[in-house]
Amino acid sequence: MNYLEMDKKSLEQRFEVIKGMYQDFLSANLHLDMSRGKPSAEQLDLTTDLLTAVKSERDCLTQDGTDCRNYGLMDGIPEAKELFAEFLGVTPAEVIVGGNASLSLMYDCVSWGMTHGYLGSTPWSKLDRVKFLCPSPGYDRHFGITESFGIEMIVVPMLEDGPDMDMVEQYVNHDPAVKGIWCVPKYSNPEGKTYSDEVVRRFAALKPAAEDFRIFWDNAYGIHDLYDEGDRLLSILDECKEAGNPNLPFLFGSTSKVSFAGAGVAAMGASEENIAYIKKLMFYQTISADKINQLRHVRYFKNMDGIRAHMKKHAAILRPKFEMTLETMEEYLGGKGIASWIHPRGGYFISFDTLPGCARRTVQLAREAGVALTPAGASYPYGKDPNDTNIRIAPSYPPVKELRLAMELLCVCVEYAALEKLLGEAN
Amino acid sequence: MNYLEMDKKSLEQRFEVIKGMYQDFLSANLHLDMSRGKPSAEQLDLTTDLLTAVKSERDCLTQDGTDCRNYGLMDGIPEAKELFAEFLGVTPAEVIVGGNASLSLMYDCVSWGMTHGYLGSTPWSKLDRVKFLCPSPGYDRHFGITESFGIEMIVVPMLEDGPDMDMVEQYVNHDPAVKGIWCVPKYSNPEGKTYSDEVVRRFAALKPAAEDFRIFWDNAYGIHDLYDEGDRLLSILDECKEAGNPNLPFLFGSTSKVSFAGAGVAAMGASEENIAYIKKLMFYQTISADKINQLRHVRYFKNMDGIRAHMKKHAAILRPKFEMTLETMEEYLGGKGIASWIHPRGGYFISFDTLPGCARRTVQLAREAGVALTPAGASYPYGKDPNDTNIRIAPSYPPVKELRLAMELLCVCVEYAALEKLLGEAN
Repeated sequence: MNYLEMDKKSLEQRFEVIKGMYQDFLSANLHLDMSRGKPSAEQLDLTTDLLTAVKSERDCLTQDGTDCRNYGLMDGIPEAKELFAEFLGVTPAEVIVGGNASLSLMYDCVSWGMTHGYLGSTPWSKLDRVKFLCPSPGYDRHFGITESFGIEMIVVPMLEDGPDMDMVEQYVNHDPAVKGIWCVPKYSNPEGKTYSDEVVRRFAALKPAAEDFRIFWDNAYGIHDLYDEGDRLLSILDECKEAGNPNLPFLFGSTSKVSFAGAGVAAMGASEENIAYIKKLMFYQTISADKINQLRHVRYFKNMDGIRAHMKKHAAILRPKFEMTLETMEEYLGGKGIASWIHPRGGYFISFDTLPGCARRTVQLAREAGVALTPAGASYPYGKDPNDTNIRIAPSYPPVKELRLAMELLCVCVEYAALEKLLGEAN
Repeated sequence: MNYLEMDKKSLEQRFEVIKGMYQDFLSANLHLDMSRGKPSAEQLDLTTDLLTAVKSERDCLTQDGTDCRNYGLMDGIPEAKELFAEFLGVTPAEVIVGGNASLSLMYDCVSWGMTHGYLGSTPWSKLDRVKFLCPSPGYDRHFGITESFGIEMIVVPMLEDGPDMDMVEQYVNHDPAVKGIWCVPKYSNPEGKTYSDEVVRRFAALKPAAEDFRIFWDNAYGIHDLYDEGDRLLSILDECKEAGNPNLPFLFGSTSKVSFAGAGVAAMGASEENIAYIKKLMFYQTISADKINQLRHVRYFKNMDGIRAHMKKHAAILRPKFEMTLETMEEYLGGKGIASWIHPRGGYFISFDTLPGCARRTVQLAREAGVALTPAGASYPYGKDPNDTNIRIAPSYPPVKELRLAMELLCVCVEYAALEKLLGEAN
């Protein structure tokens, strides 16, 4: 029963039903938050023993004898550099292990572009125009950073296997004002798409018009598979080296959704030349990140096998939530022609599309009934979704029962907004 | 026996003796580091129980029920804001509790001045000239930040009770390019001087030519007394409010030399208007600092009384080192007219002055004999001590026995360099 083919009277009848259902939700007085990709308490409980992984004076020494309770080792303790090298797919010499937030590392890299430039290039603050490419829908906090610095953001459509590379090449290879691109290459935020080998190789083979163009490769969900067989992503740094472009990518990652959100460890990777330059800038900013927390993570997880085994426990908690979310959508909206959604195999989000012009209204209806969603439009630069269709659904945080309720409400809101639109057009 | 009054022959005889003593040190093959103000292992052992102050899921909740293992509370958990408000001498609404490094908070504030400006003022990167006043000798890492951003640094002499305020007023009140001043107001780095009430009040009463002038008030040693009766410092924010200048100061502090160096908690204080503005900028940079570490600190120290009691344990370890250092200087150099030094009542340093032109040579001699000191000149902007006299001595880190040895060597090097100079002038 595709609504786009229904007559006005049937639509009106259906709208009455939906209004009644929505009214019931209003009476239920819900207070649910699905706005951010936060791990649930059950997931956080998985790493309780991390809290006490360093508990005595003797525990505080690194493998090279450095006391983590004191100053020093700005770019991270040796064992953390080893671990995060494997985590990011680079060598220990190509890693800086930082504090608790990869977002701050990205922010700093953009900020240094503005104030200091990269490897001798002109600081962006001295230029008339600076542009970033923004594959969209994408991560609102990436776009927030570039917006905050007054950098012009250009929407690049996301295709099935990554950003529209024809457009990326057109911009990067010909416009010297284009200084960067935001990428979430695996289980992208919000669509859960993974860049194909061809896309990664086309990134590596870029011939930027700007010598200081960088790929901001935020591999936030690099190990966040929902199923045993996860998506595969090529190593961007290896490919860039092979293409003779070793300085192109800045890689980012963290354990925020591995151990504790906001109390994990973040790291960045890049060519040795980039790393050496960033360490020179970083020297003025900090004496070191929290090395005790780095040590806790190494002691607790031991190595990447330990982390990968741990991620299976997260998947066991997350998978049923994702599947239930998708089932509810199918149950309520399947075949109606008023919505579409993606089935991700990892990451933290389900990307959902309403009829054009209905996303904002849907989110508003849900909010008024007590369910907070990421604001419609947030997944586009400047918060402006040109078609007003995209909604980012974050199923991780609520308990399953609440999630089911919230999804039922969301589906009702989607239908409510769609019927409003269809009936408005019919008049 | 003042060397400045000795004849050439006596100086030559003495130089032979000193050269022999220096030779003995060379043979001793020392490897000591007195270059930075690092706490000793014995001091770090004082807070071992902090490591396990948060050890279970239930421990991770704040007083308002927020789970510190998850995202949120960008400006700090409520109990940490309360603690650091008292720590900094402001109200909880005037505090941002950050990560592990106050240096990073200062860096960010300067960086935001460059890229975003303060409260609507023009970003400094858009101006032709930006200047900072640098009371000197001062903290090398402050000067490093401003140098890194290409900000012009102006030396302001340190008098007995703080910076030369006539000069400060002259610059700040008349030159709109002067955007900031670096201050360590209590037990200043390296001189251990505390700003008098009059100096603090003159700071508060400044009438800056630049609307975006800020006092960078790094109260790094605010509670680091060596003796029961510590120096007293007026509250800069209170005085500024009283003078009608609430937005003038940015306050900084941390527990780096209270709990763990590099794994403590840092905070900044400012007027509510400044804090609201900084939070707007910070929103793009981070989701939150490590709240679990904030919680560890609150649980372990409980309140400022707890911190103050703890600081007495630090003092008991540091005091003998400071006193022995001063006694060794007196013993080796007293009355010779070739050196002077300050007796601080807190902080981490002893400021030492050689004859003009001898500091660099003294540090070089010590280094060649295996004792690393802070590079001569480091306490001045651009690393240039105009008279080449100042050496910053950091007695905290080495065990007492090694410290005694290092100080003996340093005294020999001071005398070596002084005799070289006096004999050179005599020729």
